[in-house]
Amino acid sequence: MLNYDGDHGTRWRFSSHGSNAVADEPESDRRSAAPGLNPSRNPMEQDVESPAFIKPKPKLPKQARENLPKQLREMDRERKVQRYVRKDGKCNVHHGNVRETYRYLTDLFTTLVDLKWGLNLFIFVLVYTVTWLFFGFMWWLIAYLRGDLDHISDNQWTPCVNNLNGFVSAFLFSIETETTIGYGYRVITDKCPEGILLLLIQSVLGSIVNAFMVGCMFVKISQPKKRAETLVFSTNAVISMRDGRLCLMFRVGDLRNSHIVEASIRAKLIKSKQTKEGEFIPLNQTDMNVGYNTGDDRLFLVSPLIICHEINQSSPFWDVSQAHLSREDLEIVVILEGMVEATGMTCQARSSYISREIKWGHRFTPVLTLEDGFYEVDYNSFHDIYETNTPACSARELADMTNRARLPLTWSLASKLSQQGLQESEQEGQETKTCTDSEGKGQQTERNGDVANVESESKV
Amino acid sequence: MLNYDGDHGTRWRFSSHGSNAVADEPESDRRSAAPGLNPSRNPMEQDVESPAFIKPKPKLPKQARENLPKQLREMDRERKVQRYVRKDGKCNVHHGNVRETYRYLTDLFTTLVDLKWGLNLFIFVLVYTVTWLFFGFMWWLIAYLRGDLDHISDNQWTPCVNNLNGFVSAFLFSIETETTIGYGYRVITDKCPEGILLLLIQSVLGSIVNAFMVGCMFVKISQPKKRAETLVFSTNAVISMRDGRLCLMFRVGDLRNSHIVEASIRAKLIKSKQTKEGEFIPLNQTDMNVGYNTGDDRLFLVSPLIICHEINQSSPFWDVSQAHLSREDLEIVVILEGMVEATGMTCQARSSYISREIKWGHRFTPVLTLEDGFYEVDYNSFHDIYETNTPACSARELADMTNRARLPLTWSLASKLSQQGLQESEQEGQETKTCTDSEGKGQQTERNGDVANVESESKV
Amino acid sequence: MLNYDGDHGTRWRFSSHGSNAVADEPESDRRSAAPGLNPSRNPMEQDVESPAFIKPKPKLPKQARENLPKQLREMDRERKVQRYVRKDGKCNVHHGNVRETYRYLTDLFTTLVDLKWGLNLFIFVLVYTVTWLFFGFMWWLIAYLRGDLDHISDNQWTPCVNNLNGFVSAFLFSIETETTIGYGYRVITDKCPEGILLLLIQSVLGSIVNAFMVGCMFVKISQPKKRAETLVFSTNAVISMRDGRLCLMFRVGDLRNSHIVEASIRAKLIKSKQTKEGEFIPLNQTDMNVGYNTGDDRLFLVSPLIICHEINQSSPFWDVSQAHLSREDLEIVVILEGMVEATGMTCQARSSYISREIKWGHRFTPVLTLEDGFYEVDYNSFHDIYETNTPACSARELADMTNRARLPLTWSLASKLSQQGLQESEQEGQETKTCTDSEGKGQQTERNGDVANVESESKV
Amino acid sequence: MLNYDGDHGTRWRFSSHGSNAVADEPESDRRSAAPGLNPSRNPMEQDVESPAFIKPKPKLPKQARENLPKQLREMDRERKVQRYVRKDGKCNVHHGNVRETYRYLTDLFTTLVDLKWGLNLFIFVLVYTVTWLFFGFMWWLIAYLRGDLDHISDNQWTPCVNNLNGFVSAFLFSIETETTIGYGYRVITDKCPEGILLLLIQSVLGSIVNAFMVGCMFVKISQPKKRAETLVFSTNAVISMRDGRLCLMFRVGDLRNSHIVEASIRAKLIKSKQTKEGEFIPLNQTDMNVGYNTGDDRLFLVSPLIICHEINQSSPFWDVSQAHLSREDLEIVVILEGMVEATGMTCQARSSYISREIKWGHRFTPVLTLEDGFYEVDYNSFHDIYETNTPACSARELADMTNRARLPLTWSLASKLSQQGLQESEQEGQETKTCTDSEGKGQQTERNGDVANVESESKV
Repeated sequence: MLNYDGDHGTRWRFSSHGSNAVADEPESDRRSAAPGLNPSRNPMEQDVESPAFIKPKPKLPKQARENLPKQLREMDRERKVQRYVRKDGKCNVHHGNVRETYRYLTDLFTTLVDLKWGLNLFIFVLVYTVTWLFFGFMWWLIAYLRGDLDHISDNQWTPCVNNLNGFVSAFLFSIETETTIGYGYRVITDKCPEGILLLLIQSVLGSIVNAFMVGCMFVKISQPKKRAETLVFSTNAVISMRDGRLCLMFRVGDLRNSHIVEASIRAKLIKSKQTKEGEFIPLNQTDMNVGYNTGDDRLFLVSPLIICHEINQSSPFWDVSQAHLSREDLEIVVILEGMVEATGMTCQARSSYISREIKWGHRFTPVLTLEDGFYEVDYNSFHDIYETNTPACSARELADMTNRARLPLTWSLASKLSQQGLQESEQEGQETKTCTDSEGKGQQTERNGDVANVESESKV
Repeated sequence: MLNYDGDHGTRWRFSSHGSNAVADEPESDRRSAAPGLNPSRNPMEQDVESPAFIKPKPKLPKQARENLPKQLREMDRERKVQRYVRKDGKCNVHHGNVRETYRYLTDLFTTLVDLKWGLNLFIFVLVYTVTWLFFGFMWWLIAYLRGDLDHISDNQWTPCVNNLNGFVSAFLFSIETETTIGYGYRVITDKCPEGILLLLIQSVLGSIVNAFMVGCMFVKISQPKKRAETLVFSTNAVISMRDGRLCLMFRVGDLRNSHIVEASIRAKLIKSKQTKEGEFIPLNQTDMNVGYNTGDDRLFLVSPLIICHEINQSSPFWDVSQAHLSREDLEIVVILEGMVEATGMTCQARSSYISREIKWGHRFTPVLTLEDGFYEVDYNSFHDIYETNTPACSARELADMTNRARLPLTWSLASKLSQQGLQESEQEGQETKTCTDSEGKGQQTERNGDVANVESESKV
Repeated sequence: MLNYDGDHGTRWRFSSHGSNAVADEPESDRRSAAPGLNPSRNPMEQDVESPAFIKPKPKLPKQARENLPKQLREMDRERKVQRYVRKDGKCNVHHGNVRETYRYLTDLFTTLVDLKWGLNLFIFVLVYTVTWLFFGFMWWLIAYLRGDLDHISDNQWTPCVNNLNGFVSAFLFSIETETTIGYGYRVITDKCPEGILLLLIQSVLGSIVNAFMVGCMFVKISQPKKRAETLVFSTNAVISMRDGRLCLMFRVGDLRNSHIVEASIRAKLIKSKQTKEGEFIPLNQTDMNVGYNTGDDRLFLVSPLIICHEINQSSPFWDVSQAHLSREDLEIVVILEGMVEATGMTCQARSSYISREIKWGHRFTPVLTLEDGFYEVDYNSFHDIYETNTPACSARELADMTNRARLPLTWSLASKLSQQGLQESEQEGQETKTCTDSEGKGQQTERNGDVANVESESKV
Repeated sequence: MLNYDGDHGTRWRFSSHGSNAVADEPESDRRSAAPGLNPSRNPMEQDVESPAFIKPKPKLPKQARENLPKQLREMDRERKVQRYVRKDGKCNVHHGNVRETYRYLTDLFTTLVDLKWGLNLFIFVLVYTVTWLFFGFMWWLIAYLRGDLDHISDNQWTPCVNNLNGFVSAFLFSIETETTIGYGYRVITDKCPEGILLLLIQSVLGSIVNAFMVGCMFVKISQPKKRAETLVFSTNAVISMRDGRLCLMFRVGDLRNSHIVEASIRAKLIKSKQTKEGEFIPLNQTDMNVGYNTGDDRLFLVSPLIICHEINQSSPFWDVSQAHLSREDLEIVVILEGMVEATGMTCQARSSYISREIKWGHRFTPVLTLEDGFYEVDYNSFHDIYETNTPACSARELADMTNRARLPLTWSLASKLSQQGLQESEQEGQETKTCTDSEGKGQQTERNGDVANVESESKV
């Protein structure tokens, strides 16, 4: 097992090699576990002396952790952080070694629409010109084979196409026919069955080419991708308290008056993680709950909204304190999806927040003001945040402190507490105090997270 | 923290200044908290003497509450309530200080479709005319440079375009070519390579312009926005009892026979709130459950439906009594979304209810009658409501009363009650009585509805 | 309250008046309550002697029940059942007294698309003809005002349009111009500024008219409504046991090979109900769970699927026994929604099952057979069902019986049972027996299915 | 009941008849039960001696099981496994005996779009040609009836259409008119009302035909079906441990840079099953949870993602061990749906994994590498997996073992265990050991993962 991890886990390649400064973060890795997972059991596990098979575990993962992720982090911090998604929503991902290129050709239409405008226009012109040239050549060929070109000035001769006297006029006739301009100077006669057949073919084919090219152009023009540009995200995300709960918040706004129908927001935490088994998952994605269970993620986006992710037990930020956050390599990708009411097409606006763009202890300045008869959104302060009094410790520590202060009021007898709750409380007596005082050391106390929960469960 | 709130919280600007009538509403503010939050624990929290940082908290929010929201409420009540969303679904929000106007130009298509019809048509004509004029000028230029204009009556001279004898006919030729009318009186000859190139360019470009303008026009014509006009909402929402539960209800109807596919309804409570930490959130949006968890929010909208929001513990109306409601500044935005079966486009119909449009103690008059062989919807009484016997107290009080009347039957010992339940019961002793008196028997009838439910919860 | 109900509740109009046969169905009404509601508490409620306010309740609702719904039921049974939705998905609902007809005109596009083909074509032709006639008249007017018509044979005279010599040729010229045929015999000259302006207007307007009419036609042609015709529902729904649980099942199939993307199924129970407060809700809709919570309602519809609604406590069929069902007036509307992969448009297929189309104790005959190299669907037996051994009692009774047989093994003391469970057991003593007798062994086989489940719930 | 099952259950037809090797798999059948079902109770049920009606049950289903499914399995294993869905997403299902073929004609549009390209083009050309021929014939008929054909060289005679001198030129005129080419050599005169009417009809009808054919062609071209070809699934699915939980994983990737909006993934287990009542359900579909409840099934598909199905109690793989899996006939269909950002159309990519494509004890090789300034996806190793240390026993056994090792620490008394847990532990005594032995330490490491979880469940 050791060999395997050494072999495959290191496929994460780096362009620069860093030193070993930040290696001891077993807890930060655990945070990114599946949301359903109850993190409170992690600290316990290590204390438990389950008979035989505990020993090998702490050794291997730690080793793996020391090797790989820290290098990535080093590089990021020293030079610049490598984003997965840029602020404007573009993704820094290149596709390499795609061998099945035939797949792009199979899906010619999307490939065309995806091209840049210049190339797109060039292909547009090219396709038309080539078609016209081809059919021009066919008309010329018919005229040549029939001998029309030898009887240009012969009034008795009925050519296939009147006034067609060379390749140039054949080309012009081809254009006039396919675009359906049909000036009529050059005109097909009824003595030319092969010409009639060609006319038929060109009409039908021209119609198809037209459908394809114009359709392609229309789709490119009406792409909802552009609509996303008028959806804005705040430059920073903030973390502060709301009604006694630590919340991670960011702001979204719609610069247009037309609505986004079925608008919904979601946030993904992008963070490399390593499982306990030693599997390294580069840029693992975890869904962050911004109202998925209550329906609050379906937005009514008329004025800018502050999207709030409550940092509770199932949140990947449950254990993250202010100090912790600043050292972390994480990225939050926020995705706003919805249908443009005007065009009925679904668009997706994206942005991302890396650690240093998540401001601990800040709030968003309100942007909505009540004018005479309407509400006014002041986009000048859309990105503005201001500092506010926020505990620097993690949500888990916060819950623990609240819990401890609270408990004696409800149950006078400690005997009503579950064994677990008691033990944990005792272990953390002094630790908690430092957190309250200094705000800084914060991450020491993550151990207690589940007390309130366990308690309520016991009651239930 | 105090300073900040004073500074930033007051960004809520007012056009009129009111007096200090309604300031003591701590409970109504709390109601709008996150839905998952159990509001019953809030009063307790304030009793807790958690060591260090609790003290400044209760002071500030109260102060902030007194300053800001009441002024808004005053103004509203005295003059007229400022709606966020109008009854017809339009939103009273202006976007100010949008500096990134380039974004609108990037998304030219949506910008065009969003324009009013008049302006849209004007631009439509303008674009075509300008294109034609430009190409007309080009044709004229070619003719001028070749010297065609000097040889108009020279039969030996082969001009680029026959019968082109000035700018006007060049313009006409341009139109005839781009629209593909091609009368043929003015016709391009084969002795003019630059003309052929221009013909080619104009054909392709004209095709693109056409795709853009016609596409834009088509999209504007087929906008699902219009479909929403045939979706109607009742003028008022009502609150009354249904099977022992207090429900907030409104009615939606579809005037068309064609269906709304994947129709879904949702309701957002729009209400400024202030968190315990003193953050003022103007027009905070909270999702109201109208069947999100059970799938009942997916409608089958053939005949008018009464949408029912059950006022339970997770509802923001849990603490709202009739008297309370009349004093509140809230707005419920209801949103019906779905795909128009005829055109396959998603439309969104909106309406809103402010406090005075929520009629406590009313029901909707049925509109469905059974005729010979079909059901008939009588839209005359679509908006009709009638009064019914409904307790004036809040859903929470109702549940408490039911609870108290019921409990002795199940548990003979009150000691099994949690402290919280007891305290609340005491606080509401006399309030409950007046509630009972004023409402009389009607409320008694429904009082038992939740008994088993509450009971089972207590047991669990 | 009595008056109100008598007044407003009876808006349900009937075309025939029945007698008082079926009035005592308090349980069937309760079944349709909100799904979250635990119906098992209803019987208890009535036994409870809560001090003061019980008395008025049972009187009124019963009275109301006797008056209204029974008449409806009578009529249905005697003549023919009035469906809400027909088997082919059309809805038997007429919209009466719609005063806001202007709304239809606002949404002209959908109105046009919704029209029948004949009328649609007629309007199509009409619009074109009127436009052509109008512009023909304009061209004639210009010619008339300029005096062109007086100089028809005057070769020196340059008319606005060559060879335009009357209204008929003006009309032809109008057609040729707007359709962009442009034969060229009649051709505009460059001496006619008003004509050029008219040409410009007609070109632009013709293009818009074209976009509208052709777009409208295209949308009508490509309507996903038609796709729904190749989605079929079984003629009958069945109720039988699956793994010890009573299930209501129906079958859906897709006759096409092209897929339905994002296909999802849902079922609505349509049944008039009366709340405990006496509110009569005609054709109340309740969502029936066919996998909404587990994601099983998202179908992968390649071969016909049997959709299964488990009749558990939150199901509206929890209390319905075979005898009960046959007496009931209910209708299940099943709705299959999804996007047609070929065209990308969302379609909705509907069907409905009334009581007599729900076959108790039947199963669907399998239709999938394994041929050499592929699976074959035999649509001949798509609608086939066959009888199977199924208990005739309701799911609730079934669960109770299973419960009683099982309990002594787990708890030796009956005192651990909740009051509710006991009382119910007693009430149903003899009923259960008949149920057991009539059904015999088949039911015994399944009786144990829920044991562990019920047990664990009891423990919780 | 016996007869019925014998009769209808065997509608599953086979092309080859196998022997009776694999008949004793009662557990594998049970696994596929409804997800909500707690499978842990199954073994107990059979031990329970509930008074009267247990006996007939175990006999019948076993008999049925022996007859039918084993034959299918035999054939599959001996020759080749019959897939339901091929790796490229095509489905091996034929529709037989579809009597309602008129339904295909009703939905002409989809039928046309669904046709192969060759046939589609043929119909395209055919429709145009037939229309042109028909109108050509009409023009000729008019000319013939008016006597135009007899006055071809008569200059005084005003024909309906100039220069129309036979059917061929009538056909040409028809083409020129309908395609709006309008050369003008053949041109309608104003002395021919019937011709004008025909012109009008042809213009309108031609416009409709054009809308239909071009629209159909455009829809066929822009089909999102093609887009799905650039969505790839890994060749194999794997099962291994992640953070102490057994997970079934597969990988999806998007070869394009353009995004899939509202991308969502789901997986369906396709497996014939038989209910306890003896109903045989061929190719029953069960939804496998890949994040449906947490929102993790909504993907942000920029770089390849590993989709993870946690094998927990509600998973159909709960009871499946490595040995078990290899003997099973199951197929997992994975479906990726989303909207193509470029074109706004929803596409569906499918693939499937049969038993032998599910590699027990493997992991996916990471494909994402960090280059200088961007992330690079190496599609060369997209399908690569490598072996890892994974317990060969089922997730249920794993949980039991973990449970047993853990329990003494929390409860010293085994009497607190539920009967079920105990019995199961005993039954699996030796099986567990072999499992432990063969796998070694890797499994021990993960054994503790679920302790707290199981524990809390036991408490509740």
